[in-house]
Amino acid sequence: MATINQNYLKLPGSYLFSEVARRAAAYAQANPEKRLIKLGIGDATRPLPSVVLKAMHDAVDEMGHLDTFKGYGPEQGYDFLRNAISEHDYHARGVSIAPDEIFVSDGAKSDCGNIGDIFGLNNVVAVCDPVYPVYVDTNAMAGRAGDYSEELGKWSKLYYMPCVAENGFTPAIPNCKVDIIYLCFPNNPTGAVITREQLKPWVDYANENGAVILYDSAYEAFIVDDDIPHTIYEIEGAKTCAIEFRSYSKTAGFTGTRCAYTVVPKELERDGGNLNFLWNRRQCTKFNGVPYIVQKGAAAIYSEQGQKEIKEVIAYYQQNAKVIRSGLTEAGLSVFGGVNSPYVWCKTPGGMDSWSFFDQLLHEANVVTTPGSGFGPSGQGYLRMTAFGDADATKEAVERVKKILQ
Amino acid sequence: MATINQNYLKLPGSYLFSEVARRAAAYAQANPEKRLIKLGIGDATRPLPSVVLKAMHDAVDEMGHLDTFKGYGPEQGYDFLRNAISEHDYHARGVSIAPDEIFVSDGAKSDCGNIGDIFGLNNVVAVCDPVYPVYVDTNAMAGRAGDYSEELGKWSKLYYMPCVAENGFTPAIPNCKVDIIYLCFPNNPTGAVITREQLKPWVDYANENGAVILYDSAYEAFIVDDDIPHTIYEIEGAKTCAIEFRSYSKTAGFTGTRCAYTVVPKELERDGGNLNFLWNRRQCTKFNGVPYIVQKGAAAIYSEQGQKEIKEVIAYYQQNAKVIRSGLTEAGLSVFGGVNSPYVWCKTPGGMDSWSFFDQLLHEANVVTTPGSGFGPSGQGYLRMTAFGDADATKEAVERVKKILQ
Repeated sequence: MATINQNYLKLPGSYLFSEVARRAAAYAQANPEKRLIKLGIGDATRPLPSVVLKAMHDAVDEMGHLDTFKGYGPEQGYDFLRNAISEHDYHARGVSIAPDEIFVSDGAKSDCGNIGDIFGLNNVVAVCDPVYPVYVDTNAMAGRAGDYSEELGKWSKLYYMPCVAENGFTPAIPNCKVDIIYLCFPNNPTGAVITREQLKPWVDYANENGAVILYDSAYEAFIVDDDIPHTIYEIEGAKTCAIEFRSYSKTAGFTGTRCAYTVVPKELERDGGNLNFLWNRRQCTKFNGVPYIVQKGAAAIYSEQGQKEIKEVIAYYQQNAKVIRSGLTEAGLSVFGGVNSPYVWCKTPGGMDSWSFFDQLLHEANVVTTPGSGFGPSGQGYLRMTAFGDADATKEAVERVKKILQ
Repeated sequence: MATINQNYLKLPGSYLFSEVARRAAAYAQANPEKRLIKLGIGDATRPLPSVVLKAMHDAVDEMGHLDTFKGYGPEQGYDFLRNAISEHDYHARGVSIAPDEIFVSDGAKSDCGNIGDIFGLNNVVAVCDPVYPVYVDTNAMAGRAGDYSEELGKWSKLYYMPCVAENGFTPAIPNCKVDIIYLCFPNNPTGAVITREQLKPWVDYANENGAVILYDSAYEAFIVDDDIPHTIYEIEGAKTCAIEFRSYSKTAGFTGTRCAYTVVPKELERDGGNLNFLWNRRQCTKFNGVPYIVQKGAAAIYSEQGQKEIKEVIAYYQQNAKVIRSGLTEAGLSVFGGVNSPYVWCKTPGGMDSWSFFDQLLHEANVVTTPGSGFGPSGQGYLRMTAFGDADATKEAVERVKKILQ
C-alpha cells in the first residue's frame, strides 16, 4: 500500500485568505447594495510597465520564427537576466553577487517552500510571529514542525520569535541554538523594517552557530530610509550564512506574470555541502526554468525607462500606504509599518480580537482587511491593511473606517 | 549547525546531457570545419503556432490595462484552461475528468519531481530501466532510493523493471509488492508504447495492491495507432490508482514557454488521505500558478485553428521520425520506437557499448545522439535519436550515419 506524507494531515484546515474571502463573499451576498473595498490581499493592481509589455511582445514574436524560437532555456535563468540582476540589484549597491549565485524562478513563494528540499529534516527552524504562513506550512509539510496545537496556535518543534509593539516588531536573537532562521524585511505582515545595525547581530549569530538565514526581501522596492539594507549581503559576513529571496511581484506588478529569484552565495557551506551546488542540483532536477517571454519582461525592468516606470507605480502604492497610515492614526488607532512597506499594521481598538475588528470593518465600513491573528498567535489584537488598491478606493476606505471609529 | 539533505550527496556526479554536450563541444572545438547535427535532446525547434502567439499578444495587452490586468491567479490554473483540458483532452475521448481534478503547472518535470512531496518516504518505488532520469533522481533526493552503486548503475532501494528488445520494451508486472510505479508511454527514451490491453493489468495490480501509478503521458500527441490509449483513464479502474502528467512541451512546442498539467482524480485515496486534496494543498502552499499570458497561449491550442496548427507541427516531427527509422533500418541497425513517438531507439551494431557508438557517430558522422546507457543499465547497447530537428538536417544526419555503417 502506498503511504502518504502524514505531515500533510497535521495542517490545520482553514487557510487565512480563504476564510477572509468566505466572510467577504457571505457579506456581499447578503448585502448586494453595499460596495466592498478590499485592502486585504497583497496583490498588485496597477498595469505592467510599458517597457515590460514591449519586451514581452517582442519575445512572443521571437517564439514565432524559426531562427529566434526558444526551446528549453537554462534551468537557472538566462544570462541576460542573471547578469542584469547581478549588476543592478547588487553591484550597483556595492555588493558583489556573481550571476551564477542567482537562480531565476517562478516565484518567491515556490522558492521559500522548495528551499527546504536541500536541508535535513532535523533542523530547528525559527520563525517570526506573526509570519507569512508559507514558511511555517512548508516546514510542517516536510516534518520539521512537529505537531500543531489548535489551542496555542503553534507547532511543537518550531521556534517562535514574537514581534509585537513592545519590541518594535523586531525579533530578539534566539537564546538557544536554532539552525534555520526565516527573516522577512520589510516585513509581511507587520510592515516593520530592520536597520543594518540591527541585522548585523543576526548574521553574527548565524555564522557563530552554523545557522542559515533565509532572508525574504520581496518588499525591498518599498524601502525609502537610508539605514535600511536593501539586501542582507550589505551586512559583512552574510555570504557565509544567508540565502536571499527576491521577487518582481511587488517590485513590478508580476503577481500574475511570475518571476522571482533566489541568491545562494558560493561561499555558503554547511554540514559537508555547498548550498549553491545543492540548490543548483535541486533546480536542475525539479524545475525547467521560467518562460523566455517572462524573463525578457523582467529584464526590461532594468532599463532606464523600466526603472522610471516601476518607481512611479511604487510611489503610487506608497502614497496609498501614507493615506492609510495617517487616516488610521487620525481615527485614534496605534499604527505601524506603511513607511518602507506596502503593509500597514494596526492595533485593534479597545483590545478587540482580530477577527472581531475584521468583522466590524467588514460589516460597518464595508472594508475587507486581514486579521493579524491569521499570521500567528502574536498577531492577535492586530489587523493588516495593504496599499495595493486603487488610490480613490483606498481614500474612501480610510474615510469609512474613520467614520465608524469616531 | 544547520544540516543539509545528505541524500543529495549520494547522487552520481555527471548528468547525462551535460556529458553529451561536453563531448560534442570538445569535438566541435577540435574540428571547427565540421558541421554537427544534433539529434540528441528532446527539445522542440519549430515556432509556436500562430494562434498561440496571437493569444499571448492579446494577454500581454491585457496586462497593460487597469481593467484587464491580472494579479495572482488560482494556483491550480484558470478555469478557462482547466475547462478546455477537461473537455478536449478527456471528455472528447469518452473519459470524465472534472476541471478540479486538473492542476495546471509550469512543467511535467516539476510535477514528476514535486509529486513525491505528498507521499511517505517509506514507499517502494518501481521504475522502468532505461528511464527518464528525473523519476530516479527526485526519489533519490527524497531518500526513497537508498544508496547508489556505481558498479551496478543502480540504487539499492528502487525496483527496476528492465525494458529491452526481448520483452518489446514493455516492463513486466512486479512479482512483489511495490507502492509507487512510474510508467511513461509513449516512452522516453525507448519510444515504446503500451496497448489498452497491456495497460489494464497494471491498473489491476495497482488497485489490488494499493499502489499508485504515476503515468507520464507527455508524448501523447504522437500516438497514431488506435489501440494505444491517449490517457490512462481510458482504462477501467485507473481513477482509483493513477495520477497522470501531461505537457504542452512536445504537443505544442512549449519547452521554452512552460505549461503542463497533472490530473489527480478525486476518487484516489491512500493511507487515510485523498491525493487530490493533498496535491491541491501542496500546490497552494508551494506554487503560485502559471503566468496568465502562458495559460492564454495554452488555451488557444484547443481552438479549431490551434488543433490544425499543432497537428501540422506534430506531422513534421513524425516525418522526421519516419526518416530516422527507415534510414537506420536500411543501415542494418535494429530499430525501435519512432512510430507513436518522437524517439527512435536502436541497438548499437556488433554489441558496441552505448558511449562507443555515440563517439563513433559524433566523430565519423558528426551527428550528436544520446547513449542509451545514460538512461539506466538496461539501456546499455542502445542509442536514442530524436525527431525534433530540422527536416533537411535530419535527412542529412541519417545519410551520414548510413554512409559510415555501410
